[in-house]
Amino acid sequence: MSTITLSHQIILTARPTGTPDSSDFSLIERAIDPLKEGEVLLKTLYLSVDPYMRGRMREGPSYIAPFQINQPLIGGSVAEVIDSQSPLLKKNDIVYGFLDWADYSITNAENVRKIDTHLAPISTALGVLGMPGLTAYFGLFKIGQPKPGDTVVISGAAGAVGMTAGQIAKLKGCRVIGIAGGPEKTAFLIHELGFDAAIDYKKGRVKEDLEDLCQKGIDIYFDNVGGEISDLVLQKINKHARIVLCGQISTYNASQPEMGPRPELTLIVRSALMQGFIVHDYQDEYPAGISQLSRWLREGQLKYRETIIEGLENAPKAFIGLFTGQNIGKQLVKISTSSSHFIQ
Amino acid sequence: MSTITLSHQIILTARPTGTPDSSDFSLIERAIDPLKEGEVLLKTLYLSVDPYMRGRMREGPSYIAPFQINQPLIGGSVAEVIDSQSPLLKKNDIVYGFLDWADYSITNAENVRKIDTHLAPISTALGVLGMPGLTAYFGLFKIGQPKPGDTVVISGAAGAVGMTAGQIAKLKGCRVIGIAGGPEKTAFLIHELGFDAAIDYKKGRVKEDLEDLCQKGIDIYFDNVGGEISDLVLQKINKHARIVLCGQISTYNASQPEMGPRPELTLIVRSALMQGFIVHDYQDEYPAGISQLSRWLREGQLKYRETIIEGLENAPKAFIGLFTGQNIGKQLVKISTSSSHFIQ
Repeated sequence: MSTITLSHQIILTARPTGTPDSSDFSLIERAIDPLKEGEVLLKTLYLSVDPYMRGRMREGPSYIAPFQINQPLIGGSVAEVIDSQSPLLKKNDIVYGFLDWADYSITNAENVRKIDTHLAPISTALGVLGMPGLTAYFGLFKIGQPKPGDTVVISGAAGAVGMTAGQIAKLKGCRVIGIAGGPEKTAFLIHELGFDAAIDYKKGRVKEDLEDLCQKGIDIYFDNVGGEISDLVLQKINKHARIVLCGQISTYNASQPEMGPRPELTLIVRSALMQGFIVHDYQDEYPAGISQLSRWLREGQLKYRETIIEGLENAPKAFIGLFTGQNIGKQLVKISTSSSHFIQ
Repeated sequence: MSTITLSHQIILTARPTGTPDSSDFSLIERAIDPLKEGEVLLKTLYLSVDPYMRGRMREGPSYIAPFQINQPLIGGSVAEVIDSQSPLLKKNDIVYGFLDWADYSITNAENVRKIDTHLAPISTALGVLGMPGLTAYFGLFKIGQPKPGDTVVISGAAGAVGMTAGQIAKLKGCRVIGIAGGPEKTAFLIHELGFDAAIDYKKGRVKEDLEDLCQKGIDIYFDNVGGEISDLVLQKINKHARIVLCGQISTYNASQPEMGPRPELTLIVRSALMQGFIVHDYQDEYPAGISQLSRWLREGQLKYRETIIEGLENAPKAFIGLFTGQNIGKQLVKISTSSSHFIQ
């Protein structure tokens, strides 16, 4: 039996208006109940903050239920089994699942999936080998359909999804241009990841830079950002272009639907496609996706980067930072260190 | 040798600002040159006015070259061969092609295609068996991908493309709701064509009517109109909806790009697709499309309707009338009567 009797949790105390603020969150303590049959007690090692979570902070229907007020936030997490009342998992197993933002939590063993700790550092289950990596993989292949020689533009290119999508497009023989904020990110994309070019949108020259860099037009736009950057990209798309709608982080904090130039006429004139998706649309093919991403990772053909903040109390700050682009690559919060020995 | 020495033509005298006006067009006379080797002299029987022609009245690149000032407009036409210097065509053959807006014109015989006058009335080469019919056919099948039980909403439903798309969707077992302007059109869609329901947008209750009529949401939106009607339709689309971008007649006369609520976030949340096309994207498959449309027509499963104005001088009026929805079905201008005997 575990001696853990208290859990610290981050709860949502108010639905944010506009950009989320630290006052919308609170750190509380709750007693931990004894385990029931089939349950496990988990110690959180890493939790993931992701832009899509902003949508769950609103009321109303979406593709996923809203967070409840005064209840813990829930997100992708990597955790260690501390105690188990299930034959599926044993003490010290490392698991992935959607868990409370908490240092300790209880869940049914069926809600989590055991991670192979020999494959890669366990944190990659939240990044390049997890939801962001699969989002890049399926969005690019299923909707973008890259062909050698295609010009691919990626917004939010220095985020976990964007940097993976760009590298995969390079592996497929495309010319890849990333859009990101600031010289550190653009240098990283070009020099570390091998992007052909990168545009620092903070310089305010996106239109001119696209003009210079995409002289053959744009075949695939992998969009994580939306808004005015997309308006400029759309002007350069080629006949039969594919626009992969992955995220719209520039609009997530808007309280009214954002207005912009209607894209329909451009899509008609260019016989172009714009398609939204969420990664769960392709869940039947996750094993194939993870297998391919792992292979590229092992072979050194796919790189990743993480930005890690320590401490559960800093999870809201890490989340809020996504909207000002503070992270390069996957933004994680490290909650605890495993008592086991493996690559961490 | 023909005795025809003069042609009357409608030329574009000014690029329209906003809605085209009759003063943007002029009727002129031009001498007809003697036929050269390979050419035919044609007497126009019907000419087609189509919304896409508004785009050709602007300068600047699009999928088709702009009309030239003080030169004849050019559009889909059905004509009779009056004189031929080509082995491909003989006197009294009936042909389809892109011809000058003129009573008589000369073209190379390779620029036109002979029509089988036994198949259907020759005017259908401009409507249900021509570009509008094929546009409906390929747009619906290639992008819409209708399945039995799908709810299909069609804007501009009483136009030549919309009414064909709606009937094909019915043939595929879909529930079809048309949006059109005025009680005559909505009654026609329901009682003549068998649409399940029709919304008169002029009543200003499109939102409420969609709410009532699409209680299971919308799977396919076949859009000929765009603008605020599309904004309302978009709010009701289902997971994995397909939006077929065929036309945007509500925006063709705008001098600035129209602003509207950005659709991207809705497309992401619903994993929905929005795709533009022009019928020429599918030209390799025209024979199959015409064959299927002809079969449905012969079997009485597909109906069509034409609105016909007589006289070349009225062609600009017929074109301008498209933007106020004066037509039901295919808007044609009858220029002349054939000297041959067949269904006209």
